[in-house]
Amino acid sequence: MPRKAASNESPSLSLAEQAYQELKRRILTLQLRPGLFVNERELMELLDLGRMPVHQAVHRLQAEGLIEVIPRKGLVIRPDSLQDMLTLLEARLAMEPNIAALAATRATKEQVTELKQLVTESKRIVNQSERMSFMKLDRAFHGLIAEAAGNQILADAQRPLHERSELIWHLRVMKEDGLVVNQREHTNILKAIIERDANATRKAMEEHLRSLHDRILAGSLER
Amino acid sequence: MPRKAASNESPSLSLAEQAYQELKRRILTLQLRPGLFVNERELMELLDLGRMPVHQAVHRLQAEGLIEVIPRKGLVIRPDSLQDMLTLLEARLAMEPNIAALAATRATKEQVTELKQLVTESKRIVNQSERMSFMKLDRAFHGLIAEAAGNQILADAQRPLHERSELIWHLRVMKEDGLVVNQREHTNILKAIIERDANATRKAMEEHLRSLHDRILAGSLER
Repeated sequence: MPRKAASNESPSLSLAEQAYQELKRRILTLQLRPGLFVNERELMELLDLGRMPVHQAVHRLQAEGLIEVIPRKGLVIRPDSLQDMLTLLEARLAMEPNIAALAATRATKEQVTELKQLVTESKRIVNQSERMSFMKLDRAFHGLIAEAAGNQILADAQRPLHERSELIWHLRVMKEDGLVVNQREHTNILKAIIERDANATRKAMEEHLRSLHDRILAGSLER
Repeated sequence: MPRKAASNESPSLSLAEQAYQELKRRILTLQLRPGLFVNERELMELLDLGRMPVHQAVHRLQAEGLIEVIPRKGLVIRPDSLQDMLTLLEARLAMEPNIAALAATRATKEQVTELKQLVTESKRIVNQSERMSFMKLDRAFHGLIAEAAGNQILADAQRPLHERSELIWHLRVMKEDGLVVNQREHTNILKAIIERDANATRKAMEEHLRSLHDRILAGSLER
């Protein structure tokens, strides 16, 4: 009875997905702050959703390392410290330059055009007060490069790292000229992709992520 | 009431984990074959587990791409074709050489000793009839290198790729001397790690995964 099974499952899957997306968004935007203790009932009230979708969402966020289950205490939003962010950027450094190199040879014309548009758009947004708009363009830029690499497994592996990278913007650890520097580095990556130069693209992405890593470290040491 | 919440959640989480592990094992060992249509009720009977843990497990396997939900038809075990395996190895090639390079500089003495033991043990298992034992050692070898890189985000990103790689062994696409070649390539990686040579380790891992990719392609073209 596959038909019956499907009609039973779809609504519940989508509520669970809804709970997952919303909880994740609140964690990554620091509305649910690292270190906060919560229980599932509180999350149900917060989201106005039932027990099962919330439970499933918690299970998935736990698997992703964003929520921790403390035996006999409940749930805690996992602290994303400076060290975590540097670890995250090290992980992206190990993966993303090679992914970008694949994108340089495989991106479709439409994808290259879209990358150009993202970079052009972000040229107007280099003030810290607009950093949330810049963040969205940044996420789209890196995400599109991962898609353009033409390997779904790589895109899937990269997506959660990009999502968690959003914390960098919310924590404001970057220096004032950060967006200008990012903008310049994105332009270098784009240029190498337009030239279909895999090695230059790998190098440009590596420089960008290393620079981001070092700027975050410097910015937080100064605070 | 965190205490109460925790005691409610733990048993159900662990049943869901049990359902997840068992379903995944059956998919990766081809007991649940690619292309097979199933519904949740059948899986409940198969595992002798309740609706909720099975539902959660399906949700998670769907997120990992091992189960597909076909609207109005039910669930289907996702076909892992030759193309999927080559995509998987391309993904590992983009990540794992850099992870191995980190491991060369960060592996503890204990981890190096353990890697040596795994390679020594696998020297005795180079016959195709023992490939399931070799598979376990292979998985442990690559998994330990990922752990030794000292970046949990990278280890977490790599683990599902190693799990899915087990299909390679079950599908028997490799030629008869495959285990001998793997054994030799693992020895090269180990040698470079022992010498703490990050570049040589990166290169040895790259050669190993590229060779695996090419041998699978050649083996399946011959069939």
